[in-house]
Amino acid sequence: MAAQRILILGGGGMVGQKLAARLASDGLNGRPAGEVTLFDLGFPENGAPAAQRLTGNVTDTARMAELAAQRFDVIFHLASIVSGEAEADFAKGWHTNMLPMWHFLEALRAEHEATGGAYVPRLVFTSSIAVFGGPFPDRIGDDFLSAPLTSYGAQKACCELMLTDFSRKGILDGVSIRLPTICVRPGKPNKAASGFFSGIIREPLNGLPATLPVPDSVRHWVASPRAAAKMLTHAAEFDTAKLAERRALNMPGFSCTIAEQIEALRRAAGQSAVDLIRREPDETIMKIVQGWPRDFQTDRARALGFEAETNFDEIIAIYMEDDLPHASARQ
Amino acid sequence: MAAQRILILGGGGMVGQKLAARLASDGLNGRPAGEVTLFDLGFPENGAPAAQRLTGNVTDTARMAELAAQRFDVIFHLASIVSGEAEADFAKGWHTNMLPMWHFLEALRAEHEATGGAYVPRLVFTSSIAVFGGPFPDRIGDDFLSAPLTSYGAQKACCELMLTDFSRKGILDGVSIRLPTICVRPGKPNKAASGFFSGIIREPLNGLPATLPVPDSVRHWVASPRAAAKMLTHAAEFDTAKLAERRALNMPGFSCTIAEQIEALRRAAGQSAVDLIRREPDETIMKIVQGWPRDFQTDRARALGFEAETNFDEIIAIYMEDDLPHASARQ
Repeated sequence: MAAQRILILGGGGMVGQKLAARLASDGLNGRPAGEVTLFDLGFPENGAPAAQRLTGNVTDTARMAELAAQRFDVIFHLASIVSGEAEADFAKGWHTNMLPMWHFLEALRAEHEATGGAYVPRLVFTSSIAVFGGPFPDRIGDDFLSAPLTSYGAQKACCELMLTDFSRKGILDGVSIRLPTICVRPGKPNKAASGFFSGIIREPLNGLPATLPVPDSVRHWVASPRAAAKMLTHAAEFDTAKLAERRALNMPGFSCTIAEQIEALRRAAGQSAVDLIRREPDETIMKIVQGWPRDFQTDRARALGFEAETNFDEIIAIYMEDDLPHASARQ
Repeated sequence: MAAQRILILGGGGMVGQKLAARLASDGLNGRPAGEVTLFDLGFPENGAPAAQRLTGNVTDTARMAELAAQRFDVIFHLASIVSGEAEADFAKGWHTNMLPMWHFLEALRAEHEATGGAYVPRLVFTSSIAVFGGPFPDRIGDDFLSAPLTSYGAQKACCELMLTDFSRKGILDGVSIRLPTICVRPGKPNKAASGFFSGIIREPLNGLPATLPVPDSVRHWVASPRAAAKMLTHAAEFDTAKLAERRALNMPGFSCTIAEQIEALRRAAGQSAVDLIRREPDETIMKIVQGWPRDFQTDRARALGFEAETNFDEIIAIYMEDDLPHASARQ
């Protein structure tokens, strides 16, 4: 049986790279992932292995149609601008995070029709818990409405709806996975409002000071980069007939407070690491974070075999195992 | 104070005509609706009064930008192809029911920016309970997810998300109202799968035979055309600040069975009218109807002042008052 041809849109980003590395080591559907093509604006040096690295932008409709014409067996769509940027630049957000999905789905439909309906790729789309907006119940269940309070969330929710409808029509076999906050993100601090969730662990483990802009009581929904990569490959492997046309899934994670994160850091690296965290309350960040979901009941995804960590000690251990050895080289 | 300038996209359709007639008789915001512009593919003869009737298609992006440039104070967006057509012609559905909304919102954003942010029209969009797909709870509440099982429903849900995000940014002041099945629809039978809900009342009241393709036990969610027109004008008048960025509202209606409809018909027009209903089970229609919501708990809309009928006798009385006198002239 031939190895599957795989495309990762956004393959140069942190999650895309973790996914490419996992495909190289573990394959897909019990087979080696022979040909993995990464597509992104750019790629890290010494990045994950891939057969091809293509530089380009999802907003380039002609280019995306060329990619569609290559008829990959499995497509991971991870490409988007981040929440903060989509909020700051309204037009860029919609033109990057929503409209290219429409054009790409149409390009895939053209391939489907050109093959008399034989070409039906698996398409795994990384959506986000940003599709939810408050007020929330204590735990968000699988039937809770998408009422996003950011442009990023609205764009992701639109993409989910389109992907589901194209799938219902048999044009492709899509699934949207709503990822938790990914923690601990490796690499340098970024400007995302959620950056401190990773920063207060990553920086102290690297002997660097970190800033905590919110109170210890703040609760959020997290999973590791390793878990995210595994969710993506599982989303490409499982039997989508079980979705019964509800093709957007809240991914497992676990709900923890900043205080619990800090206690886990203390257990992993001692009080000297915890002492590197400086409390600098930031009203703006606090306000953004208050709008985010804090806890989920992810029965559907768990029944379908999706998994995540269950405590923060595990999350820290994964960072120390997967990323800490390379941290200084990358920073 | 100057009368408001009002645009009705889809103003030639049944609900658009009811709305135009209501605006002519009752005005808007306590003021006469001085200038009402209707835009549609065509208009009925002897239709509702309007200052202008413009023939055109919402898929004509340049034409829609010209309309946006007229900076109407209030815009009602009712234009779409129906559920059955959107299901039969996938591309036409998305190209008529979704993409024109995006282009129109962008055209309104250009006007907003050209006026330094001063132009912020009220935009009332008729969404549908087709944004919901089973499995359902016994009653659908205000927090239930949109998981449509038709292209029409997915297109409406996408439009809702876009409208909400443009509104959140202050570009316009939008509200999406999810209308119940409108019953009793005046005029000729149409090919909509839901047509029989009106047909089994309308035809017997006009002395004509009607076909009932589903069992008496089928339950659905209904409101009259008069109630729909009132929901639309109320949606243009109420204080949207109360929506707290959840700008898609399930409209009130009432849940009734076919058996209850038939009993009301008997009370209104006697056994001879009921005898005109022929039972002709249709598996295809039954299957479609089983996918539709049956009952709602519309607390938010009711708290915001939206109203509907509470029993089917009222629905029949409204048809007999508003439409039966003209039925023979129009058929």
